[in-house]
Amino acid sequence: MIEHRLDWERAERTGASEAVLCDPKSAAQIDAIVAHASELGRRLLFTRLGERKFARLGAPARDALDYDASSRTAILGGVPAPLGPGRIAIVSGGTSDAPVAREAARTLAFEGESATLIVDVGVAGLWRLMERLEEIRRHRVVIAVAGMEGALFSVLAGLVPCPVLAVPTSVGYGVGAGGRTALRAALASCASGLAVVNIDNGFGAAHAALRILGDRAQG
Amino acid sequence: MIEHRLDWERAERTGASEAVLCDPKSAAQIDAIVAHASELGRRLLFTRLGERKFARLGAPARDALDYDASSRTAILGGVPAPLGPGRIAIVSGGTSDAPVAREAARTLAFEGESATLIVDVGVAGLWRLMERLEEIRRHRVVIAVAGMEGALFSVLAGLVPCPVLAVPTSVGYGVGAGGRTALRAALASCASGLAVVNIDNGFGAAHAALRILGDRAQG
Amino acid sequence: MIEHRLDWERAERTGASEAVLCDPKSAAQIDAIVAHASELGRRLLFTRLGERKFARLGAPARDALDYDASSRTAILGGVPAPLGPGRIAIVSGGTSDAPVAREAARTLAFEGESATLIVDVGVAGLWRLMERLEEIRRHRVVIAVAGMEGALFSVLAGLVPCPVLAVPTSVGYGVGAGGRTALRAALASCASGLAVVNIDNGFGAAHAALRILGDRAQG
Amino acid sequence: MIEHRLDWERAERTGASEAVLCDPKSAAQIDAIVAHASELGRRLLFTRLGERKFARLGAPARDALDYDASSRTAILGGVPAPLGPGRIAIVSGGTSDAPVAREAARTLAFEGESATLIVDVGVAGLWRLMERLEEIRRHRVVIAVAGMEGALFSVLAGLVPCPVLAVPTSVGYGVGAGGRTALRAALASCASGLAVVNIDNGFGAAHAALRILGDRAQG
Amino acid sequence: MIEHRLDWERAERTGASEAVLCDPKSAAQIDAIVAHASELGRRLLFTRLGERKFARLGAPARDALDYDASSRTAILGGVPAPLGPGRIAIVSGGTSDAPVAREAARTLAFEGESATLIVDVGVAGLWRLMERLEEIRRHRVVIAVAGMEGALFSVLAGLVPCPVLAVPTSVGYGVGAGGRTALRAALASCASGLAVVNIDNGFGAAHAALRILGDRAQG
Amino acid sequence: MIEHRLDWERAERTGASEAVLCDPKSAAQIDAIVAHASELGRRLLFTRLGERKFARLGAPARDALDYDASSRTAILGGVPAPLGPGRIAIVSGGTSDAPVAREAARTLAFEGESATLIVDVGVAGLWRLMERLEEIRRHRVVIAVAGMEGALFSVLAGLVPCPVLAVPTSVGYGVGAGGRTALRAALASCASGLAVVNIDNGFGAAHAALRILGDRAQG
Amino acid sequence: MIEHRLDWERAERTGASEAVLCDPKSAAQIDAIVAHASELGRRLLFTRLGERKFARLGAPARDALDYDASSRTAILGGVPAPLGPGRIAIVSGGTSDAPVAREAARTLAFEGESATLIVDVGVAGLWRLMERLEEIRRHRVVIAVAGMEGALFSVLAGLVPCPVLAVPTSVGYGVGAGGRTALRAALASCASGLAVVNIDNGFGAAHAALRILGDRAQG
Amino acid sequence: MIEHRLDWERAERTGASEAVLCDPKSAAQIDAIVAHASELGRRLLFTRLGERKFARLGAPARDALDYDASSRTAILGGVPAPLGPGRIAIVSGGTSDAPVAREAARTLAFEGESATLIVDVGVAGLWRLMERLEEIRRHRVVIAVAGMEGALFSVLAGLVPCPVLAVPTSVGYGVGAGGRTALRAALASCASGLAVVNIDNGFGAAHAALRILGDRAQG
Repeated sequence: MIEHRLDWERAERTGASEAVLCDPKSAAQIDAIVAHASELGRRLLFTRLGERKFARLGAPARDALDYDASSRTAILGGVPAPLGPGRIAIVSGGTSDAPVAREAARTLAFEGESATLIVDVGVAGLWRLMERLEEIRRHRVVIAVAGMEGALFSVLAGLVPCPVLAVPTSVGYGVGAGGRTALRAALASCASGLAVVNIDNGFGAAHAALRILGDRAQG
Repeated sequence: MIEHRLDWERAERTGASEAVLCDPKSAAQIDAIVAHASELGRRLLFTRLGERKFARLGAPARDALDYDASSRTAILGGVPAPLGPGRIAIVSGGTSDAPVAREAARTLAFEGESATLIVDVGVAGLWRLMERLEEIRRHRVVIAVAGMEGALFSVLAGLVPCPVLAVPTSVGYGVGAGGRTALRAALASCASGLAVVNIDNGFGAAHAALRILGDRAQG
Repeated sequence: MIEHRLDWERAERTGASEAVLCDPKSAAQIDAIVAHASELGRRLLFTRLGERKFARLGAPARDALDYDASSRTAILGGVPAPLGPGRIAIVSGGTSDAPVAREAARTLAFEGESATLIVDVGVAGLWRLMERLEEIRRHRVVIAVAGMEGALFSVLAGLVPCPVLAVPTSVGYGVGAGGRTALRAALASCASGLAVVNIDNGFGAAHAALRILGDRAQG
Repeated sequence: MIEHRLDWERAERTGASEAVLCDPKSAAQIDAIVAHASELGRRLLFTRLGERKFARLGAPARDALDYDASSRTAILGGVPAPLGPGRIAIVSGGTSDAPVAREAARTLAFEGESATLIVDVGVAGLWRLMERLEEIRRHRVVIAVAGMEGALFSVLAGLVPCPVLAVPTSVGYGVGAGGRTALRAALASCASGLAVVNIDNGFGAAHAALRILGDRAQG
Repeated sequence: MIEHRLDWERAERTGASEAVLCDPKSAAQIDAIVAHASELGRRLLFTRLGERKFARLGAPARDALDYDASSRTAILGGVPAPLGPGRIAIVSGGTSDAPVAREAARTLAFEGESATLIVDVGVAGLWRLMERLEEIRRHRVVIAVAGMEGALFSVLAGLVPCPVLAVPTSVGYGVGAGGRTALRAALASCASGLAVVNIDNGFGAAHAALRILGDRAQG
Repeated sequence: MIEHRLDWERAERTGASEAVLCDPKSAAQIDAIVAHASELGRRLLFTRLGERKFARLGAPARDALDYDASSRTAILGGVPAPLGPGRIAIVSGGTSDAPVAREAARTLAFEGESATLIVDVGVAGLWRLMERLEEIRRHRVVIAVAGMEGALFSVLAGLVPCPVLAVPTSVGYGVGAGGRTALRAALASCASGLAVVNIDNGFGAAHAALRILGDRAQG
Repeated sequence: MIEHRLDWERAERTGASEAVLCDPKSAAQIDAIVAHASELGRRLLFTRLGERKFARLGAPARDALDYDASSRTAILGGVPAPLGPGRIAIVSGGTSDAPVAREAARTLAFEGESATLIVDVGVAGLWRLMERLEEIRRHRVVIAVAGMEGALFSVLAGLVPCPVLAVPTSVGYGVGAGGRTALRAALASCASGLAVVNIDNGFGAAHAALRILGDRAQG
Repeated sequence: MIEHRLDWERAERTGASEAVLCDPKSAAQIDAIVAHASELGRRLLFTRLGERKFARLGAPARDALDYDASSRTAILGGVPAPLGPGRIAIVSGGTSDAPVAREAARTLAFEGESATLIVDVGVAGLWRLMERLEEIRRHRVVIAVAGMEGALFSVLAGLVPCPVLAVPTSVGYGVGAGGRTALRAALASCASGLAVVNIDNGFGAAHAALRILGDRAQG
């Protein structure tokens, strides 16, 4: 009785493509959305689609979707070839932060924007970050992805002049569990000009980066 | 014995001017910083300098500073004439959010960037926001300033395609006291691509906006 | 040894029908309650009865109950035909809020009150809400259901003059997880006259709405 | 440069009169608002106006306002004679909750609605509440005001069939400090159909009650 | 390599029998404890022993233990016949609080103390509590067990003169989840002389009651 | 218009004398209460009456009251001679906990019960506690008063067989500020049978102790 | 695409061996790390490797690793014979704290440092701790491991002059759940000179102890 | 009646000198402690003694004390000449952290231990820290003092092999206010072997450092 009405109109007004957050949706609901969008010939990005739920989708949906398990994303309608070299660097602190970093990368790919992934450069081994610094500074926007104590955000923002978007991740235990410590560290940073998105929100950071690049038509 | 070493070098590396957070400093410490910077011929921005503390500064410091009580900021070395029309809109929800909105405006003015202040357009009276929407959309970056429940952030980000920087303010009482509710509302927003700074951090939002405009030389 | 004593007397004193919260009860306990109430010829509403637990009920209970999986409610003793057009609008922000919205609707239906469900009108796409505004305003009470940052509550309460009951939902992640952010946003709202119930409490909002309609005899 | 724009238009759309929260405003700002509204011949309610701040207002404002110290409210433009007997009961648990109870009463008085104040009927002395129960039940809406553990809310809502609006107060110490415990108790109540407003928000409860009485024209 | 050393000596010094909290222990560890205590001819109480874990115990342990699933307790060495009529009343608010109420009862039974269980007398239906009041007042100690908003604690402590021990339970959802709201309500109660134990700690309340009855020899 | 109605009836029903919490009351309100009770010839205990507020009371009130600054209590109607040797030991961890320990002692004195004060026996110097242990064990009830990490509660409850009432105090800084850490430590104690009251609530602990001694007539 | 780059260089700079936190890693990722390190002839410590995940590793990894289920650790490359008697005492409060105590012991063993494990000496039975005190005092560093209310930390630090490292554990329920209470108790301790690590962080405490012993070459 | 009993015995057992926390004590209490200790010829350290309270002390106390306003400490009995070069480095992130850094330094000085103060080396300007790194690494213990997001702790611990004691400070605003964010960042650090003390606890860090240096006789 209640159906998901995809907000095609919003896409037109704000320039943002529609995305479907799969976490709170059943496989049947996702099947229906894929079918409906396919019928209309619309492209769609699906986020937080775990491997188990993907496996429970019907064959038509599974066939239609370009699925990436590590980022838990699926793309309907094809991934466009990127338009030139990456303007966005995605820098992450540890292996465990990779799923969130990759969610950001896939969201950008869906929008035709390529990104440079620079992983495992946490501050406990500062020289690794320093070795990649010149490469990072060549980008127009930096998306920083880190959990635990989130020290990476302040260190990075103190080293590069471009916009730095902090994505705290829920990686950690004890007082670091759930990402609250990394989130607060990003917000309380002593480095000025850092901007922050919700915990594990690689999708949101990608959209903030796209707003900054500013290529989308203004309503 | 312990003195504040102004980090002139950082300004050169990241393109950011130095600023002095006055809240935890004594009048004597601020007097000394003003004297030292004046001697070196350096410009400086002072934030969170309340009227009482300003009144306790020595005459030389008070004379040297361009002080604005409503934003609690002071500028040493003069405010440059803005370089063209404002590229940044600062939109605030209520009268009580004005000091934070003005801190952002003064920080931008210190850097030679003018901003358009659009105040009292909270969502409880949505038509007021709607009347100013076209004007807001003409800017390259929007700084949204709101306390209480922070609904303004989501509404704005759903209506404009450019980068929106949310500054939650500590205006509110009960569960809204201290700005935590507005902060969480900004982070949990259903509108994608919103980026957030710390509570009452108009200074930080201004610097994030400057990073986005990207005119500063890259170290 | 300890049995659930249904409080038939309370129903007579406050005009409220008895309801059974199934979450913390075993299938055996629910079977017993159904049998006992059937024997007495009493009608009953069961809430938070998940599909798995419903499937574990005995055949007599399953046969006796009118079960609705999407709202996780069951009704014993039949659903009365509604007494005229809906006086209550249930407005929800996203697809994921639907179970809570439907719990409210089923609770009202059990009491013989029909409701108008208006879904997927979240503030990220404000025009969808605006298109339904005149329809919403034709009701005597509005139940607003939203998770994440809960901006819908303030926007709605600023647009309609009738009582607005906010039901925050546990939909969200990061700082939005568990519904606390939506709850606080409802309580801290800048729109005056908003009243709030517990997170995911569609049942409670329905009862508050029934108290407002005030048709029930006063003890 | 930034002025408070009174939202006369909102009053017309939602039927709510404009109110001014004085807590975060300076005496000078309040003086200006009084002068401006007087010029336009508008009535206004001022809330959270402490005695010290009232004493710092200019003589014209002090003369124009009907000030009540116990509720920290002031009314510009006169208090209308109430339209008939009180339809709203304001029930409070202890002496210390009186300021919030009176804020609700004054807000109603400003709107021409009289209320019955029933104080000092906390649950630690249940018989006092019981003695007043029949009187309370004769009203169409009950505003319940309580701090500390907020047990009054559940007890009352279990005893009366009409709408009960809970206003938690910040009265208490230790874990009861600031009103969070009373607020959570109201939201988690085992009595169904209780609706809740923010801590110390007598003004908001009064507006919710007015929405329920429903006499105001619908936009 | 690390074994659980039962603290027989403590029993002698404080008069308390030893108890084993099973939650964080494996079935193998519990088997070993049962075997060791049986060998020594010691009696033991096991708490928080869920049905699944009990089923995984070895046959000797299962045979040796008097197991009660509803309270998740097991007794080794037999339950003594109670020494006279119950001096302790255990009063609980709802069916869902029964497991905690029964943990208290079983702990008392293990110590040879019988208790009167009075259940389902929550404050939403105050007359049920009132009907049992005289019976409750005939006891020397009252253990009150309640979840959600915990209003029962204040109401009871205002009605009886004997010691009242509040046991908040983790029954509830939204802001009531996990028992924090009931706990804070017990601590912030307006009724004087209420004493409180940890959430779901029926065992602790029973021991506090035993300390109050004071029959145990003083070391 | 709103007056404090002293609940003389409650005193008769529960055996508890009335007490007046002065924190949220004005000097004028306290003057009026003293006058009214004096007229009726009633005894009264005043708690949380700071030195400044006491100094602002009228001469009649100041003359009528037996004031003790260190416990911030005042007694109207005289302090009765204690009925025999102290049955209650009040044990505190540090000098800074003394005001709370003394509030308990004065509350007991008001009820005619003497108490033994044993101070400065915190666990950082365990031998001091050990030296007083035999003396402590000679009492029927122990009130333990401690702030910071509250380790005293567990240590004491493991060493004495009688009822131990824990009063956490707000003494501490950093994570110990406000008494939350000491409160949680008391509730989570590994020593069984500890009962807890609100932070700084010496008055409540005294009343719980009186309930345990059980001399008061049962209503 | 994203691989775990083991930071061999850090080991050389800070003297710390590399460790792999297995919680957020898949069995496949761990297999790869084992293979890669084996190839390079590197030793490695794996922490938080549960029995289930260990069972899902490939045969080569399972064969190569020295696995200890109780501490959830695995060692690649052999455990060196300890260099002399234990200089570090690991003291724990209860059986349930043993896994964390053993994680510390295994981390030390991996580094060639033996430790003395002293378990089940919680403060509820103080004499057990006292009996072992002389033994504990013979070590150069004490690692104290405790959950629930963490009183052990203060008691120990008041009794020994050497460095005491507190490791709060997540053992507990109600307000003690998750280890926050034990953590705060350690930080707020009245005993001076206590140093604290994250909840359940036996690994971190071991490394802090190694830093204190100071044998490792300085980079 | 209640007096502060200085624990001279503890000093002898644990090797720690006695210190007096002045925050919760009155000027009169401090005067008495100074007089008593002077009489006994004992040395004493006073912490958290603000300038206002110091000014209110009697002349004998003021004359007897060596007072340092910036660290809010006073020393009775003289400051010994340090025994050789500093073995402890105190490294702080910003000017505002200096009072806490100096409290540590003064505590060490009282014990005859000199320290090297290295201030204003926060991570937002990483090169400043790098320039001092060799100097820092020449010490046996590092006390790191930082507020806001506390990134300094992780960066330092990743760069030096010796023990690092993190002292979070209450410097910050918004989510950084009160030091909780810096504290959690220290505990959740990705750098292994970091040990943490309470917020603003320079005194405690100094004592932990002294325990590590280990020169004090073992009781």
